[in-house]
Parts: sequence; structure tokens; C-alpha cells
Amino acid sequence: MNKAGAKVWYFPDGYLPEKVGSGPMEAHEALMLLNTSSRPANVKLDFYFADRDPVKGVPVSVCAERVCALRLDHPEDIGGLAIPPLTQYAIRVRSDVEIVVQFGRLDTTQVNMAYYGAMGYSADECEEF
Amino acid sequence: MNKAGAKVWYFPDGYLPEKVGSGPMEAHEALMLLNTSSRPANVKLDFYFADRDPVKGVPVSVCAERVCALRLDHPEDIGGLAIPPLTQYAIRVRSDVEIVVQFGRLDTTQVNMAYYGAMGYSADECEEF
Amino acid sequence: MNKAGAKVWYFPDGYLPEKVGSGPMEAHEALMLLNTSSRPANVKLDFYFADRDPVKGVPVSVCAERVCALRLDHPEDIGGLAIPPLTQYAIRVRSDVEIVVQFGRLDTTQVNMAYYGAMGYSADECEEF
Amino acid sequence: MNKAGAKVWYFPDGYLPEKVGSGPMEAHEALMLLNTSSRPANVKLDFYFADRDPVKGVPVSVCAERVCALRLDHPEDIGGLAIPPLTQYAIRVRSDVEIVVQFGRLDTTQVNMAYYGAMGYSADECEEF
Repeated sequence: MNKAGAKVWYFPDGYLPEKVGSGPMEAHEALMLLNTSSRPANVKLDFYFADRDPVKGVPVSVCAERVCALRLDHPEDIGGLAIPPLTQYAIRVRSDVEIVVQFGRLDTTQVNMAYYGAMGYSADECEEF
Repeated sequence: MNKAGAKVWYFPDGYLPEKVGSGPMEAHEALMLLNTSSRPANVKLDFYFADRDPVKGVPVSVCAERVCALRLDHPEDIGGLAIPPLTQYAIRVRSDVEIVVQFGRLDTTQVNMAYYGAMGYSADECEEF
Repeated sequence: MNKAGAKVWYFPDGYLPEKVGSGPMEAHEALMLLNTSSRPANVKLDFYFADRDPVKGVPVSVCAERVCALRLDHPEDIGGLAIPPLTQYAIRVRSDVEIVVQFGRLDTTQVNMAYYGAMGYSADECEEF
Repeated sequence: MNKAGAKVWYFPDGYLPEKVGSGPMEAHEALMLLNTSSRPANVKLDFYFADRDPVKGVPVSVCAERVCALRLDHPEDIGGLAIPPLTQYAIRVRSDVEIVVQFGRLDTTQVNMAYYGAMGYSADECEEF
């Protein structure tokens, strides 16, 4: 199986922390997308919530042989979408080339920071491609 | 492989922290279930312990195109089951449609919180379906 | 694919923290094994190190429909083997029935604890079975 | 599926913390490689960045039946490459025998440390093998 990743990635546990810390690093969540192929990846992000319809098809791209970090608390990184803090959300990532995607949270709500990171669940395709 | 997740998920490491912290966030464990399909997911939760028989078949549901967060320290979220704190337990999740499930713990036992999160181990089916 | 887990699990990153904390929880590493099948799992643990030969075939068992937590800093849990702290080690788990295995570390070296947890890398079989 | 791991591993989220802590443990990121086979693994590391070309083919080796920990903040461990701190990078690991690879970060930027660990995304082969 010759693979440079997967075309669909799922991340059920998104939850933006409050920005109340005073340390040198700001609380945030981010998505890291690695494209090791020789052509750019055209990616669509779908955001799911607990009690409203999903926001689908936010376009981003990842250059060939580059890693790209998207801040999920920066609307300008995700097509203008403002995710409210302290709200459960989930992400589906769809790409036209195989990529590898990881999720990270840095929480600084209290005096010291806490990390949580997860490789996504991946699939080769999904219905809505 | 056209997939929106898996129908069976396993989480070996459940262990509810004590609720002794005084910070703004309460210690807890939670299960996040993402259903990207266009129909509701009928889910059964099975809880395993170290020294007693499992509790099987706790029914929950996840609406179409929604993410659902279940608090494992809230009996009302899991069919009235009260999991004792500081006790090892494990979870199996069985769904009639493909979903993606993640586990998270927030511990506030000491002054600052600590996170631990894990994507589950997944399978397409299991014996008792 | 009707599966209740896998028969071989790999954990590359074992590193017992020092027991210098004074909080209510003791620093440790542990292995959580979930057996959802209806018969006991006969398990062999293999420990790998950076600069000496592995210790193979430490026998443990997991009852049917139970989760079992093994403390890796307690020699009595792992056949008398005393793993030195602050030393890199890795674990391979081999079972005669399908199980799901997760690894957890609790570090209390400093004032507040830090967690790290990981589902293992799994395979259906390995050469030395 | 008789497997001792995979030949290709991907880690999208590398980000070396600053070394400003004063605790007993130094902030760092590391790669743990487990080779359970009976012959040495010849490994090539490829490093990807956000805004410059990758550095490919850094050779390392892992002895038979050993675990090897590479410090990513120690150029001497990774062929002289000095990764700048606070910069997003990603890693691809290519091996001629099946291995299992895990990534770990210890951050001591603030008073107490924070862990983040992840098993990589794996594949049997990749284009550039």
C-alpha cells in the first residue's frame, strides 16, 4: 500500500479554550496538515456542531512538500468562520491528494498550560466527495 | 474505502478523577461522537470493569450531521449508570451507522489541570452486534 | 471485519518518571488491557531497551469481559521485572485472543501532574507468536 | 497480517518549545523508534517546513531488538540538522524493515511541564522509497 496519507480525516473533539491565561503562549486549537506529495492539496474543511447545521466546504490549500498550520481560533485561517469558545465542535477534512492531519490544543486557562494532541481518524473517501 | 467512521469503538482507559479542584473547569471524562451521515445513529454503550460483570447496551443516539458530547461522570448522560471515581473502567461503543468517537479526560486534582485524549480503536463489527 | 481488537500491540515510548512528587497521586506508567471476548486472554509481554537485550515472554492474563490495569513500576504486576526509572523502554504485547491495549503515564515530577496516553500500534500477528 | 510495524511514518505536528524552564527536565521533542525484528533498520528521516523546501534523507539506524530515542533538539542525533525552536515542522520516517515510531514533546515553558505524545500515521510504502 503506497500511501502518503489519506483523503478524509475526522476530529470529533474540538473545544476552543477561553483566552484568559497570561503566559507567553496563547490558548488555541490548530490543525496541522502535511502534504509530502509533489502537487498542491486542495482541501475542504467541514465543521460540525451539537445543535446546529454544519458549515461545509471551507477551502484551504497546502503547497507541495509543505506542512501548514491553521489556527482554529483565527477566522482568517478558516474562510472567515468564527468558532465560539467553550462550544463542542468537530472537523472533517477532505483533500484531493493524500495528506496527513493532526489536531492540537494548548490550554492556558489556569496558571500552567495543558496540551492535548491527536492524529485524526482517516478514510480514503467519503460520500460527499 | 468510502467511510464515515466505524461501527465499533474501544476505549480501555477510563478512570474518573476526583472532583477536588477549585478552578473554573470541573474534572471529568467525556465521549465525543461525530455522525457525519444523513441519518441518526443508534448507539449502544458497554462498560467494562476490573472485577465485576460489564454493564451492556446503554442506549444513546446521535443526530444526523451532529457531534454529541456525553459526560461520563453524569449518570443522566449514560442511562442512569453511576461510574465510581478512581476506578478503572473501559468502554465499547456500538453504532448502527459509521461514526467517529474520541475520549477526553480533564483532571483538576491539583492546582493546574491536565488533559488526556485518545481516538478509540475501531472495528467494522463485533460479535455481539 | 468482525474484530474485538488485535493480537499484537506495540508501545515504543516507555519512560518511568521519578517518584518525587508529593501530591495525592503517585507518578507511574500503566498498561490497560481490555478483553471483551467470552474467554480469558493469555498474554505475553516483551520489554525492549536501548542498549541491552529484550526481556521476552512475561506472562499475564486478562479475564473474559474485564479490563486489567498493569502498573509498569510494580514488579509484581509484570513477572518480577524491575524497570529502572528515567530509562527508555518499549513494550510489545502478544495475546491469544483479540484485545485492545492502551498506555498511560502520570508524571508528578513537578508541582502539578502531567498526563500522556496512547493507544498502541496494533497488528494481527507477529513472527514470534 | 504478520506485522512488526510499518515502513513509513508521518508526524505533522513538530514544534520545538523554548528552553526557558528551570525544572529538572529539559524541554524537548523526541522520536522513539522500536525495531523488534532480528536485523538492523536503516532509516531515513525527512523534515518538512511551512515555507521552505524539505530536508530529506537524514540517515539513522536502529539495532535489531532495540528501541532508539532521537532528540529532535540535538543536531548530532539527526545528521547535524538544527531545527529552529517555535517553528512548525513535520517528519516523515522511512525504514527498510518494519518499525513502530512514536513522537513525544515535553514542554517546560511555564512552571510545570506539559506532555504531548502521538503514535504516527503509518503506511507500508511511499513514492520516494
